[in-house]
Amino acid sequence: MADSAIVTPGAPAEGAPGTDAKRRHDPAARGFASDNYAGAHPEILAAIALANGGHQVAYGEDDYTAHLQDVFRGHFGPRAEVFPVFNGTGANVVALQAVTDRWGAVIAAESAHIHVDECGAPERVGGLKLLTVPTEHGKLTPELIDRQAYGWDDEHRAMPQVVSITQTTELGSCYTPEEIRAICDHAHEHGMKVHLDGSRIANAAASLGVPLREFTTDAGIDILSFGGTKNGLIFGECVVVLNPDAVRAMKHLRKLSMQLASKMRFVAVQFEALLSGDLWLRSASHANAMAKRLETAARAVDGVDIIHPVQSNAVFAALPHDVSERLQKNYRFYFWDEPAGVVRWMCAFDTTEADVDAFTAALAEEMAK
Amino acid sequence: MADSAIVTPGAPAEGAPGTDAKRRHDPAARGFASDNYAGAHPEILAAIALANGGHQVAYGEDDYTAHLQDVFRGHFGPRAEVFPVFNGTGANVVALQAVTDRWGAVIAAESAHIHVDECGAPERVGGLKLLTVPTEHGKLTPELIDRQAYGWDDEHRAMPQVVSITQTTELGSCYTPEEIRAICDHAHEHGMKVHLDGSRIANAAASLGVPLREFTTDAGIDILSFGGTKNGLIFGECVVVLNPDAVRAMKHLRKLSMQLASKMRFVAVQFEALLSGDLWLRSASHANAMAKRLETAARAVDGVDIIHPVQSNAVFAALPHDVSERLQKNYRFYFWDEPAGVVRWMCAFDTTEADVDAFTAALAEEMAK
Amino acid sequence: MADSAIVTPGAPAEGAPGTDAKRRHDPAARGFASDNYAGAHPEILAAIALANGGHQVAYGEDDYTAHLQDVFRGHFGPRAEVFPVFNGTGANVVALQAVTDRWGAVIAAESAHIHVDECGAPERVGGLKLLTVPTEHGKLTPELIDRQAYGWDDEHRAMPQVVSITQTTELGSCYTPEEIRAICDHAHEHGMKVHLDGSRIANAAASLGVPLREFTTDAGIDILSFGGTKNGLIFGECVVVLNPDAVRAMKHLRKLSMQLASKMRFVAVQFEALLSGDLWLRSASHANAMAKRLETAARAVDGVDIIHPVQSNAVFAALPHDVSERLQKNYRFYFWDEPAGVVRWMCAFDTTEADVDAFTAALAEEMAK
Amino acid sequence: MADSAIVTPGAPAEGAPGTDAKRRHDPAARGFASDNYAGAHPEILAAIALANGGHQVAYGEDDYTAHLQDVFRGHFGPRAEVFPVFNGTGANVVALQAVTDRWGAVIAAESAHIHVDECGAPERVGGLKLLTVPTEHGKLTPELIDRQAYGWDDEHRAMPQVVSITQTTELGSCYTPEEIRAICDHAHEHGMKVHLDGSRIANAAASLGVPLREFTTDAGIDILSFGGTKNGLIFGECVVVLNPDAVRAMKHLRKLSMQLASKMRFVAVQFEALLSGDLWLRSASHANAMAKRLETAARAVDGVDIIHPVQSNAVFAALPHDVSERLQKNYRFYFWDEPAGVVRWMCAFDTTEADVDAFTAALAEEMAK
Repeated sequence: MADSAIVTPGAPAEGAPGTDAKRRHDPAARGFASDNYAGAHPEILAAIALANGGHQVAYGEDDYTAHLQDVFRGHFGPRAEVFPVFNGTGANVVALQAVTDRWGAVIAAESAHIHVDECGAPERVGGLKLLTVPTEHGKLTPELIDRQAYGWDDEHRAMPQVVSITQTTELGSCYTPEEIRAICDHAHEHGMKVHLDGSRIANAAASLGVPLREFTTDAGIDILSFGGTKNGLIFGECVVVLNPDAVRAMKHLRKLSMQLASKMRFVAVQFEALLSGDLWLRSASHANAMAKRLETAARAVDGVDIIHPVQSNAVFAALPHDVSERLQKNYRFYFWDEPAGVVRWMCAFDTTEADVDAFTAALAEEMAK
Repeated sequence: MADSAIVTPGAPAEGAPGTDAKRRHDPAARGFASDNYAGAHPEILAAIALANGGHQVAYGEDDYTAHLQDVFRGHFGPRAEVFPVFNGTGANVVALQAVTDRWGAVIAAESAHIHVDECGAPERVGGLKLLTVPTEHGKLTPELIDRQAYGWDDEHRAMPQVVSITQTTELGSCYTPEEIRAICDHAHEHGMKVHLDGSRIANAAASLGVPLREFTTDAGIDILSFGGTKNGLIFGECVVVLNPDAVRAMKHLRKLSMQLASKMRFVAVQFEALLSGDLWLRSASHANAMAKRLETAARAVDGVDIIHPVQSNAVFAALPHDVSERLQKNYRFYFWDEPAGVVRWMCAFDTTEADVDAFTAALAEEMAK
Repeated sequence: MADSAIVTPGAPAEGAPGTDAKRRHDPAARGFASDNYAGAHPEILAAIALANGGHQVAYGEDDYTAHLQDVFRGHFGPRAEVFPVFNGTGANVVALQAVTDRWGAVIAAESAHIHVDECGAPERVGGLKLLTVPTEHGKLTPELIDRQAYGWDDEHRAMPQVVSITQTTELGSCYTPEEIRAICDHAHEHGMKVHLDGSRIANAAASLGVPLREFTTDAGIDILSFGGTKNGLIFGECVVVLNPDAVRAMKHLRKLSMQLASKMRFVAVQFEALLSGDLWLRSASHANAMAKRLETAARAVDGVDIIHPVQSNAVFAALPHDVSERLQKNYRFYFWDEPAGVVRWMCAFDTTEADVDAFTAALAEEMAK
Repeated sequence: MADSAIVTPGAPAEGAPGTDAKRRHDPAARGFASDNYAGAHPEILAAIALANGGHQVAYGEDDYTAHLQDVFRGHFGPRAEVFPVFNGTGANVVALQAVTDRWGAVIAAESAHIHVDECGAPERVGGLKLLTVPTEHGKLTPELIDRQAYGWDDEHRAMPQVVSITQTTELGSCYTPEEIRAICDHAHEHGMKVHLDGSRIANAAASLGVPLREFTTDAGIDILSFGGTKNGLIFGECVVVLNPDAVRAMKHLRKLSMQLASKMRFVAVQFEALLSGDLWLRSASHANAMAKRLETAARAVDGVDIIHPVQSNAVFAALPHDVSERLQKNYRFYFWDEPAGVVRWMCAFDTTEADVDAFTAALAEEMAK
């Protein structure tokens, strides 16, 4: 993966036409807080410009959204159906509603984004009950699922109808295709569907070195949230239905969930730019490589513990609290479990080797104090 | 309002950098179906490019969103607070939730977008009860409001807590500042708040020839949905709180309603480009002028009835059904009330005089057959 | 209809065993405000005593609820399934959820109880959108339904999936079996189901002089709310599924709607007492007869207009406002449309001829002043 | 506690007046499955008869409900406000909605009834997010609460606004007044309210030997669900507001939650009978005493482990699975954790010493096989 494929974000926005807006930030400043702190990939901006001008039917009946079906079918197989939406929470809640009834419950890891980071949207918008299980690195297994998969006929219990897994997980780990297949088989045997929160699905494919469909369609996933924003889009995610028999009225669900974009061509064309060629993989592989580089350097520093497998673009480390605080003066990143001294370092499509090297040098220096 | 201020959409997207996306539409094709069939204004695209590059804090803590507070305060007064969201339904449902309790109801015109075009999102996401009133041209009055404004202490009735008006209305009419003030005074006397659905608020200001605050803040509106998409943005609307005493926890409400953009700088900078200078007014005035031009020409055609006051960028006409169908072969537009032969013709920021003239010529020709 | 069949409510509660509760009301006082101002029929109290003692499985697996299936099948046919619940709003909201998807809407008369008297529970608990139509006497027709029955494929519109009618209506009128059949046929042709709010279903059967199934099962109703409270129960309604193909997981829906009674035997046995013999019909016929008597006497008074057909136990009259207020000093009843001077007089299973005669004498006297 | 105070359920229902209902169960059969398998206390039935006859205003404006305010103020202090409802899930969801905003979350034990036994009603009806914590015997502590009490300003997280505890707990244990006071103080310091699920609150008072207000009002509880059904009512629970400053529009909340009884006098008079004298305490003390007797006898049997403190009317035991199954042939009770061999034995107000002795004799006999 050549770094030259990655935009040099410090470069001036040349030829910017007249606008009353002003540049208000340093386009060379980058940190390790989140992959959605990054901006958009230039190829994405170019695609948006391409789709501009003239009138196109609104609400998804445009030519770009029509073509996007083919793009996704190329990746996920001929039965796939794609529904662009605005954001990840929206994608998850639309997808989960699609495979549950009013009485349904969702089995998920205790660390799942739908449980801890969506302000209760699954419950409030979807009326969903979440049944959670503690895990080691954010990954469910058939055995862990069984801790919540029971009581389908007991009306006092919300009926488990879906298992939701995140790939790559919120803790940076990555399911193998076999692990996902085992989960899907197990869920299906019990009449449950499987949802994959693919907020960082491209990082998973890059990490596994396999096509997207190998750990989704082919592994038995019924419906997924396909992440774009964290991989270089301005905004935009997609709900991808892999098992059309499992869903109905997806367009109504998207609309009532307030996730229907009027000028959908601008969501669709971003995904076309991302997925028609290898931009999705280039960007994700680069982010993963930067995380590996960071991990390697951090492991070499005495006193820094890497606490989850680094299988995507996230590094979770335990280190002295005061060291983290001193580092945060120059590098933005989050505490993940502040009492335990655990921090998260995220790499993005635009993270450079120099960014990583400077940061890990600072880490080593602060740890040595 | 000079046409030269409006982009010529047929021009090639010069200098488009490499992207795997393809142009799939005719950038010179325009119709009269909806203002959200139009693309984005070039100044908006330029602003997005300006905000790109480097890392900015996600979820609204970026420099562009911070600055946007000043921009909106410039228009709406020093107490205004702005919360960018994704789309109009989202803005409305966040705003209405903000000024209602779990037991609240919303009084609105029977023709209100929140009632007829949001797939029940106010009810389903917000748990809101809508109490509607038939109107002549989509406009409420204190007298019409009184048909639903009663029974606050009657627990069998959803409690009327908000009046929601649309400016300009879904039928193209426009409230005067005095009319809005009368509604707000009346609502406030009964302890109710007032929400303004400003999906086309810029068209109203252009039509009235007054500053935005004259018919909002100064008229007593408590909270509003500020429309951007229909006025030349790629996507993006804002909830604007004018009466901060009436709301709490807006950020939580936005998040749980799945309307929180991670890379919010790209929403904020579009609004900065729109509202820092006169782009908002230029575009809206132009669209209004095109509707006036269309109205004038259509009125000159025998057998075409203009059925609502043309006070923005929409023209509602009654004409023979078969004429409409023949026109639709070349010009996309919608039937509004098909049995009654009523159609809607919308103009956008990029509608040209030539577009209007060609269409009205065709109208005259078809009517003459 | 023998009056002797009706309890004499003024009689002392003989043999009342020791309890720390005190009698706090005049058991001889009756008015015309509502049929749920009445107490319980003595045969109902006797049935409750019969079911008491010993342990019975909770939550509906008791012997009384099991038997109730047979009782309801006797009335509604061999496919009927009965689900006892607590109250009418609960029955309606459970039933409507059962025949709608998350994106569903319910077509109803503007005067429907679900629209005006349930504090938005259908919207808030069920996430339902109500699409209402003005009617003359509270009765829908296929033509009126068509004013809302369209746009099933339009995701911007909540999808009409059910028609809900009330029998007898909130305005005291009564559908004929043929009228209901026409509505059901029309709804089914459009893929919609039909719900009947039978809060006063016994009064309808008594008024029509036909078995319950003639205007329900046999007319095509899919699901109904069967009212018990207004016909002499302490509490209790039933959701009755007539078309089991249209529903799933009814028990879960009842539970999550908080309508599952733990000691269900006490709901079931009341319905057994009501419906095994003719108590349901005796009580309803008596209430209807009292309303007829009241109507006849009121029509004889100059200046009193009866504004809806009296086809059950309700009389709606228009008379001078001050007369109503003077009457209310001695007889409790409600204004229905206060500005229009419309009042509602309800009769109950325990209303006596003497009650009616005294009231209509007072009416005549006050009108003569 | 004299057994003679307890009804002899096998006695014939003497003097039962005519009803078409039939007795369908053995009024002498009792098991250990649940306290809501029991029927109603005869004093409760007598109270219902007392309140019957004549007309009383519906929906809670009757004389019995008015008086009930005094009854509850006698127990809970002069600021208490009581709202009768139908069932425990309804009481909990009304109460929790009353002290949360749309963005609120509820901290509760993982074993809480609201989490495991209400089919998601808190989430679906109330839009509530539950934040749960594993506990030893079902009891929260300030330290355990802190595992979820954080992030009030973080919009990605549902905002913790209430702590909900159950007294006595679902596992039969009982908080001391001091423990509850510590929880309330801790919650209040963080701006949170405290809800007490008092489904078995009478058993707690009986177990602690203190007045009800000592561990509720005086300990800082803001709102509670007062259980009646499990303590000998036909049906009925109450939401009791102890801190009226914390709530608004309770009547609307109860109605929209479908928990408003029309003939409320029949709920109110049951509670009057329960709480005016000592019926509540007599019944609860007796049930507790029977559980103690059962515990004592079971502890004497080799191989039977009592796994939670027996501080109310529940006994949780671990014993060989096959023994339980053999016992269940004659005595109905539930497995609580079937893989672990844990069962629950509940005593009710009508459990007799002979019931317990026969059961524990059978237990000893089966264990000896």
